[in-house]
Amino acid sequence: MTQLPISADLIADRNAVHLEALEDDYGALGRKLARAGIDIDAVKAKVAGFSVAVPSWGAGRGGTRFAKFPIPGEPTNIHEKLEDCAVIQQLGRTTPRVSPHFPWDKVSDYKALREEAAALGLGFDAVNSNTFQDQPGQAHTYANGSLAAQDAATRAQAVDHNIECIEIGRQLGSKDITVWVGDGTNFPGQQDLGRSLDRYLEAASQVYAALPDDWRMLLEHKMFEPAFYSTVISDWGSSILAAQELGPKAKCLVDLGHHAPNVNIEQIVARLHRFGKLGGFHFNDSKYGDDDLDSGSINPHQLFLVFNELAEAELNPREGFNPSYMIDQSHNVTDPIESMLSSAETIAQCYAKAALVDRDALHGAQEANDTMMAFQTLRRAYNTDVAPILAMARLEAGGAIDVLEAYRLSQYRSRKAQERKAVGRGAGIV
Amino acid sequence: MTQLPISADLIADRNAVHLEALEDDYGALGRKLARAGIDIDAVKAKVAGFSVAVPSWGAGRGGTRFAKFPIPGEPTNIHEKLEDCAVIQQLGRTTPRVSPHFPWDKVSDYKALREEAAALGLGFDAVNSNTFQDQPGQAHTYANGSLAAQDAATRAQAVDHNIECIEIGRQLGSKDITVWVGDGTNFPGQQDLGRSLDRYLEAASQVYAALPDDWRMLLEHKMFEPAFYSTVISDWGSSILAAQELGPKAKCLVDLGHHAPNVNIEQIVARLHRFGKLGGFHFNDSKYGDDDLDSGSINPHQLFLVFNELAEAELNPREGFNPSYMIDQSHNVTDPIESMLSSAETIAQCYAKAALVDRDALHGAQEANDTMMAFQTLRRAYNTDVAPILAMARLEAGGAIDVLEAYRLSQYRSRKAQERKAVGRGAGIV
Amino acid sequence: MTQLPISADLIADRNAVHLEALEDDYGALGRKLARAGIDIDAVKAKVAGFSVAVPSWGAGRGGTRFAKFPIPGEPTNIHEKLEDCAVIQQLGRTTPRVSPHFPWDKVSDYKALREEAAALGLGFDAVNSNTFQDQPGQAHTYANGSLAAQDAATRAQAVDHNIECIEIGRQLGSKDITVWVGDGTNFPGQQDLGRSLDRYLEAASQVYAALPDDWRMLLEHKMFEPAFYSTVISDWGSSILAAQELGPKAKCLVDLGHHAPNVNIEQIVARLHRFGKLGGFHFNDSKYGDDDLDSGSINPHQLFLVFNELAEAELNPREGFNPSYMIDQSHNVTDPIESMLSSAETIAQCYAKAALVDRDALHGAQEANDTMMAFQTLRRAYNTDVAPILAMARLEAGGAIDVLEAYRLSQYRSRKAQERKAVGRGAGIV
Amino acid sequence: MTQLPISADLIADRNAVHLEALEDDYGALGRKLARAGIDIDAVKAKVAGFSVAVPSWGAGRGGTRFAKFPIPGEPTNIHEKLEDCAVIQQLGRTTPRVSPHFPWDKVSDYKALREEAAALGLGFDAVNSNTFQDQPGQAHTYANGSLAAQDAATRAQAVDHNIECIEIGRQLGSKDITVWVGDGTNFPGQQDLGRSLDRYLEAASQVYAALPDDWRMLLEHKMFEPAFYSTVISDWGSSILAAQELGPKAKCLVDLGHHAPNVNIEQIVARLHRFGKLGGFHFNDSKYGDDDLDSGSINPHQLFLVFNELAEAELNPREGFNPSYMIDQSHNVTDPIESMLSSAETIAQCYAKAALVDRDALHGAQEANDTMMAFQTLRRAYNTDVAPILAMARLEAGGAIDVLEAYRLSQYRSRKAQERKAVGRGAGIV
Repeated sequence: MTQLPISADLIADRNAVHLEALEDDYGALGRKLARAGIDIDAVKAKVAGFSVAVPSWGAGRGGTRFAKFPIPGEPTNIHEKLEDCAVIQQLGRTTPRVSPHFPWDKVSDYKALREEAAALGLGFDAVNSNTFQDQPGQAHTYANGSLAAQDAATRAQAVDHNIECIEIGRQLGSKDITVWVGDGTNFPGQQDLGRSLDRYLEAASQVYAALPDDWRMLLEHKMFEPAFYSTVISDWGSSILAAQELGPKAKCLVDLGHHAPNVNIEQIVARLHRFGKLGGFHFNDSKYGDDDLDSGSINPHQLFLVFNELAEAELNPREGFNPSYMIDQSHNVTDPIESMLSSAETIAQCYAKAALVDRDALHGAQEANDTMMAFQTLRRAYNTDVAPILAMARLEAGGAIDVLEAYRLSQYRSRKAQERKAVGRGAGIV
Repeated sequence: MTQLPISADLIADRNAVHLEALEDDYGALGRKLARAGIDIDAVKAKVAGFSVAVPSWGAGRGGTRFAKFPIPGEPTNIHEKLEDCAVIQQLGRTTPRVSPHFPWDKVSDYKALREEAAALGLGFDAVNSNTFQDQPGQAHTYANGSLAAQDAATRAQAVDHNIECIEIGRQLGSKDITVWVGDGTNFPGQQDLGRSLDRYLEAASQVYAALPDDWRMLLEHKMFEPAFYSTVISDWGSSILAAQELGPKAKCLVDLGHHAPNVNIEQIVARLHRFGKLGGFHFNDSKYGDDDLDSGSINPHQLFLVFNELAEAELNPREGFNPSYMIDQSHNVTDPIESMLSSAETIAQCYAKAALVDRDALHGAQEANDTMMAFQTLRRAYNTDVAPILAMARLEAGGAIDVLEAYRLSQYRSRKAQERKAVGRGAGIV
Repeated sequence: MTQLPISADLIADRNAVHLEALEDDYGALGRKLARAGIDIDAVKAKVAGFSVAVPSWGAGRGGTRFAKFPIPGEPTNIHEKLEDCAVIQQLGRTTPRVSPHFPWDKVSDYKALREEAAALGLGFDAVNSNTFQDQPGQAHTYANGSLAAQDAATRAQAVDHNIECIEIGRQLGSKDITVWVGDGTNFPGQQDLGRSLDRYLEAASQVYAALPDDWRMLLEHKMFEPAFYSTVISDWGSSILAAQELGPKAKCLVDLGHHAPNVNIEQIVARLHRFGKLGGFHFNDSKYGDDDLDSGSINPHQLFLVFNELAEAELNPREGFNPSYMIDQSHNVTDPIESMLSSAETIAQCYAKAALVDRDALHGAQEANDTMMAFQTLRRAYNTDVAPILAMARLEAGGAIDVLEAYRLSQYRSRKAQERKAVGRGAGIV
Repeated sequence: MTQLPISADLIADRNAVHLEALEDDYGALGRKLARAGIDIDAVKAKVAGFSVAVPSWGAGRGGTRFAKFPIPGEPTNIHEKLEDCAVIQQLGRTTPRVSPHFPWDKVSDYKALREEAAALGLGFDAVNSNTFQDQPGQAHTYANGSLAAQDAATRAQAVDHNIECIEIGRQLGSKDITVWVGDGTNFPGQQDLGRSLDRYLEAASQVYAALPDDWRMLLEHKMFEPAFYSTVISDWGSSILAAQELGPKAKCLVDLGHHAPNVNIEQIVARLHRFGKLGGFHFNDSKYGDDDLDSGSINPHQLFLVFNELAEAELNPREGFNPSYMIDQSHNVTDPIESMLSSAETIAQCYAKAALVDRDALHGAQEANDTMMAFQTLRRAYNTDVAPILAMARLEAGGAIDVLEAYRLSQYRSRKAQERKAVGRGAGIV
C-alpha cells in the first residue's frame, strides 16, 4: 500500500479553489495554440509522460567550503530522504525516481529499501559512486586521485567501489551508474596529463566490464573543482573520447554547471547526440562555476535551448535517443523540497515549450536561410506561458495545482523538525 | 630569547654546500645587470627590505566543499600555527608577520600570544573577522548575511564581532582590519540589490567608527562564492565606492582570485592607486575562480605585472603608497609550509623583477608610442632569473639558500606528526 | 506633414485580420492579471509610454573584421537611414528617436535634417562622437589613442570633435552626448595605466566644460576591443570614478555586451543608480564578447532582470532616475529593420514584465528572508506572456499588431533595393 | 643565388659589439646548467633545429572591425610579403617557411613564386583556404556559410576552392592544408546544430579525398567570431570528432586564442596527442577572445606549459609526433616584422625551457605524488633565462644576436616606405 506523506484532502481542497482560474487559463491557451495548429491536449499528454529524477543528497541542505547552514527538519538518512522525495513526487508528479549515492545511502537491506521507496510511490534511478572523499576505515586515500591515481591499489579500491555500486543498483532496480571523479591537479607538473588519462581509462574499463548487459555507464565531465589546475575528464571532448574507448554502453552525462564560461551547452548536447554518446543530464543552473543553483533560475532560456536540441534529437534519433534526466542542485539557501518542486516544474516547462516549437516552420526557415523567422519560431514557443498545461497535467495525475502553496500549508517541514534529529552546523572546510 | 624551530647548524651546513654556485650565479648576473646600468647590490638591498605576511589559517591543510585531506603533523591551534610560520620566516626571511583570524585564533591572553610570536621572530599583521560562519552559541545566524543582513540584530552582532577583532588586534600590534563578508544571494530577487548595499554601508560605518586613528579598514571584494548570484561587495567598483563613503581610513584590498574571468587585475591596482584607495593584497593564484592556488603557480607574468604597477605607484605616490601584502592560499595538496616558502619566494621574485625594469627606457618608449620597445623593456626584466639575488639576500639575513631543501632535511613535519594530535578527515559539505 | 514609409491601409488590413485573436488573448490575460490584483489596462498605458532610441548606424548591415555581407537596399546615407528608422517606428511605435553618429551622419544643414526626421515621425536622441577611426584629411591619427593619447595635439583634436558633436546635437534637439573611446593597449607596458587615465580625464573635462546646462555626457565603458590588453575606461568602476571627477552632468552608460564573462550586470545597474550615476543603456545581447546581437536573443532573462532593477530604481529614485535607452546592435545576418523591430518588442516586453512584478510581495518576501517566494514573485512576472499587452498598445498607437508580417508584406526592402545604390562588399580587415 | 634583404655587414658589426657579453652570459648559464647535469651545447643544438612558420598575411598591419591603422612601407602583395618574411628569417633564423593564404596570395606562376621564395632563403608551409569572405565575381556568397552552408552549390564552391588550394600548395612544396571556416550562427534556431555539422563533414570529406598521400588536412576550431551564437567547429571536441570521421590524414590544429575563458589549453594539447590527432599550432596570445596578440606577450607561462606537453609527447610519441608550428597574429599596433621577430624568439625560448626540464626528476616526483617537487622541477626550467642559448644559436646560424636592434639599424621599413605604394586607411566595418 502506498503511503504518501501529504494529506490528499489538503491537495484536493486547494485544487478545488484554483480550478476555475486554471480552466480559464487553460482554455485561453488552448484557443491560442489551436490558432497556430497545436492541440493543447496532445501537448498536455506529452508533458504528463515527462519525468526527471531527484538526487537523494539533494534533500539535505547544501553548503560551500565556507559554511553550511542547516535547517530544522532536514533528513539525515536515506529513509528520511526518500520521504522528502515522496513529497516532491506526490505534489509535482514529475519526479518518480530517486538517484542514490554511495556510501552516503548505504543500508544493510536493499530489497527492503526498494520496497520502502515503492510504498512511497518512488523507484530508483542511476546509482552514484563516491571516490572523491575518504571514508572511515578506508584502506587507501583518494587525496591523490581515484580511478586515475598513480597508486595501483588506490585505483583498484576505486574500481571495487564502483562495482559495488553497480551491485547495489541491481538490487534497487537501477540501470545506470554515473561516474564522476574529482581526479586532477592543482599545480602544473603535478601529474602527467597523458598518463593520468591512461590510468583513468584502464581503471574505468574494469568498471565497464562489470556492467550488466542492459546497463549504461554515464561519464560526467567537469571543468574544475575540486581540482583547480587540471581535471582528468574536464570537458565533453575528454568525456566522449573516453566513452568511445570504453564501449557502446558508456555514454556522456552533461551537468549544466560543469563547463567553461560562455560555452554553448546546447551545441554540446547536439554534438553528443550526433556521435551517439548522449547519456543524460544533471540539471541545475549557474552563473559562475559549478554553482548548483536551481534549474533555470539564472538562465531559463538556455535550459529551453537544451530541450529544443532534445526535441530535435528525438525526431532524428540517429543511433538512438534515450537520455537520463536528473536534478543535481545544492540547496544552500532554500528548503530543498521547495527548490526541487520549483526546479522540476521549470524543467518540465522547458520540455513543454520545446514541444510547442513549430518544427516544420523552423526547418523551413532554416532551409531558406531565413534567420529572423527561424529565431522567431523558437522565441514564440519560449514566450508562451505553459504553466496551465503543467498544472492541468498535475491535477489529472493527482498532484497539486500550486505545489508550493500545498507544501507550505501541509506544514511538512515543521512536523519533521519535531520528529527528526538536528543536523550539526557545517563549520566549513577552510 | 628567540627560539627558532629549525637547527641553525643545518641551515649553515647546507648554505656552505651551495655557496660557491650561488656566488658564481650572483656574479654573472651582477655583470649582466651592470652592462644595463643596474647595481645588483642595490637591488639585493631593496629585496632584503621586502616582506609579505602569512595567514595563520594557511598553516593548515585546506580543502573544497567535496573533501579535505589532512596531513600528519598539521597544526590545530594558533600556537602550532605560529610555530609553523616561524619555520617559514626562519628559512625564507621574507615573512615576518602573521595575519590572525577570529574566532579561529581566539585565546584568553593576547599579550602572551604576542610575546610567544615575538620569541619565534614573528609579529602580527592585519586581523581578519569572520561573519561567514556560525559559531557555537552564537545568538543570530549568518545564514542570510552579516553586515548586510536584513535583520538588524544580526547586523549588530556582526558589527560587534568586527569591533572585538579590532580590540584584539590592538593587543597584538596590528594596524589593519580586513573585512570580507560572504553576504549575497543565490536567486534573483532574494534581496534588493540596492538596499542590501545600504545596510552594508550603514553597518560598516559603525565598524569604521571604532577604528583607532592609525588603523585602516581593508575592504575585500569577491565576485562569487559563497553567494552564487550576487555578492554585496563583488568587485573593485563596489569596493572603492564603499571605501569612499566610509572615509579616508577605508581602503580596498585586492585578492588576485576574486575577479571575473579575463579581467586586467594590474589595471585595477593602478585604478585603486590613482584614486587613493589601494590598501593591500591577498596573494594567491587561480585558473578558474577563487582557487586559492600558490602565488604565481598559474600565471607568474600577471603577478609580475601587478608588481610593475606597484613600482610605478611607489615612484608616483599621488595620495600616498602603503599597501599591505599578505599571502592567502588554500593548500589542498601540498605541505602548507612548503607552499608558503615557495610562494613567498615567487612574490619576492616578482618584486625584484619589477625593480629591474629600466623605468626611464619604459617611460621614454611610452612617450614615443614605441610599443615594441616599451614591451621589451618590461619583458627583459621579467625574463631575468633573479633567484641569485633572493638567495644572497636570504643568506645574508640568516635564511637558507635552498629553502625547500633545508625544510625537508629538517624533518620538521614528521617530528610534528609525532607531537601533534591528528586532524579529522574533512567529509566535505555536499 | 508626416509622410510615413509604409501604407497605412496595409497595416489596417492586417490588424483587422489579427484583431479577434488579439482580443481573445488580451481578455484572457486581463482576467489572469485581475486575479492577481493587476489592471491590464494600466500596464498597457505604462507600456504605451515606453520608448527606446535606435542608432542610425544600426540601419545598415554590420560585420566583423573578417567580412561584411551587404544586402540589397541597404541605406548609404543619413537620409536613407532615417527612412528605415521611420519604418521601425511606424510599425512598432516604440522607437521615436534616432541616435546619430559623427562624422558618419554629417550633413551641411542640420536644421533641414531635423525637419526631415520630424516629417518621418522621428526626433533625435544622444549624439555619438567617433575618435576610434581616422577620417580622410584628419590632421592627427588616432592610432595611439584619442582623448587619452600621449600626443597633446591628438587629444585636442578629439576634444574639438566632441565639442563639434555637441554643437550639431544642439541643432538636432539632442540632450546627451555619448562618449566611447577605444583608447587602450595591446601590450603590457605600451602605456602607463595611471597616466593614460590622467590624460583621459583632463581631455574629457574639456568636453564636459562645453556641455550646455541641460545636457549630459554619457561615458560608455568597454572591457576590450579594439584594445586587447587594457582599455582606459574598461569597466563600470573606471566609468563611475571618471564621472565623479567630471561632475554632475557626467553619467555612466551601460552597454550589455561590454562586460567580463559571468558578471552580474543588473547589479552594476543597481550600483550606478545607488551612487547617482546611471545615465543609460545600449541594448544588445552577447554570448562571448561585444557580439552586438539582437536584444534578448541570447539571454532574455538577464534583460528582464535589468528592467527589474530599473523598476526598483524608479520607485526609489535616490538622486533621480532618468536613464536614456538605446538599441546598439550589429545586424550581420538579418535585415536591420527586422532586427530592430524584433529587438524593440523584446525590450518593451521586459519593461512590461518588470511592471507586472508584485513589488509588495517581493519586498515582503525579501524582508522575511523568504528566498523562494521572492524568487517566485519575479519568476511569475517573467513567465507571463505579455505579447497581447504590447500588441494592443501598438494597435492603439497606429502600429501593426504583427510588425514583422506587416514589414514583409510591404516589400519595403525590395523597393529600396531598386531605388538605392549598392553597398560594396566588405572585404574584412584581416 | 640567395639575396637577403639586410646587409650582412651590419649584422656582423653588431654581433661583434655584443659578442663578449654574450659569451659571458652563455658561459655562466652553461656552468649553472652543468651543475644540474645539463649540457648547454646540446640544448643549443636542439634549439638550432627548431623552427616555426610565419603567415604571409602577418606581414601586413592588422586591425579590428572598428579600424585599421596602416604604416608606411607595409607590403601589399605576396612578393613584398616574402621580402619581409626574409628579413625575419635572416635576422632570427627560426622562421624558414611562409604559410600562404588564398586567394590573397594568388599569382599566375607558382613555380616562379617558389623560386622567388627560395632565393630569399624561404620555403612554403601549410596553405590556407578562405571561405569566410566573398571575392569579386564569386558565384555564391558565403554569407550563410561555406562548407556547412545550407545551399549545395555554395558548399561545392567551397570544396572546389579548397581543392584549388591543395593544387597550388603542391606547386609551392606545401604538405598541409589548414581549413578554418567561420560557419556558424548568430541566433538560436538559425541553423540546425546537428545537420550543419553533417553538411560540414560531407563537404570536408570531399576536400579530404583530394589530399595527396603525403599531405595532411589540419582542422582549426574556434569558439566564436565571426559567428556569435554557435560555430560549427567550435572546440577541440568537435574538431577531433570531425578528424576521426575524415580519416588518418585529418588532424587538429590548435590556435591559442580560440578557446573559452579559463580553459586548460595544454591539457587539450595532451588530449589531442593522446588520441593521435595533434596536427599543429597557430601561435599567438590573447587576454579576452581571439585577440591575435604577440605570442607569449600576455601569458608566457602558458606557452611554456604547451611546450612542456610537446616535450612529453616527443618522448612518448604513441601514434607519432609531427606537429606543424606557425605564428598567427594580428599586428595592429606594431611593425609586423618586429612583432614576428620578437614572437619567434619567445616561442623558441619556451621550446628551450621545455628542453631544460629534468624529465627524470619530474616523472619521479609525479610517481611519488610529490606535488611540490614536480612543480618546482617545471618552475626551475621556466625561470631560467635562456636568451643566451638562443642568441648563440642565431649567431652561429648567421643571424643577429639582437634581432630588433639590427632590424632598426637597417632602416628597412623606411626604405620600403619610399619604394612601396601606400595602403588605404581601414575605415572599419561597423
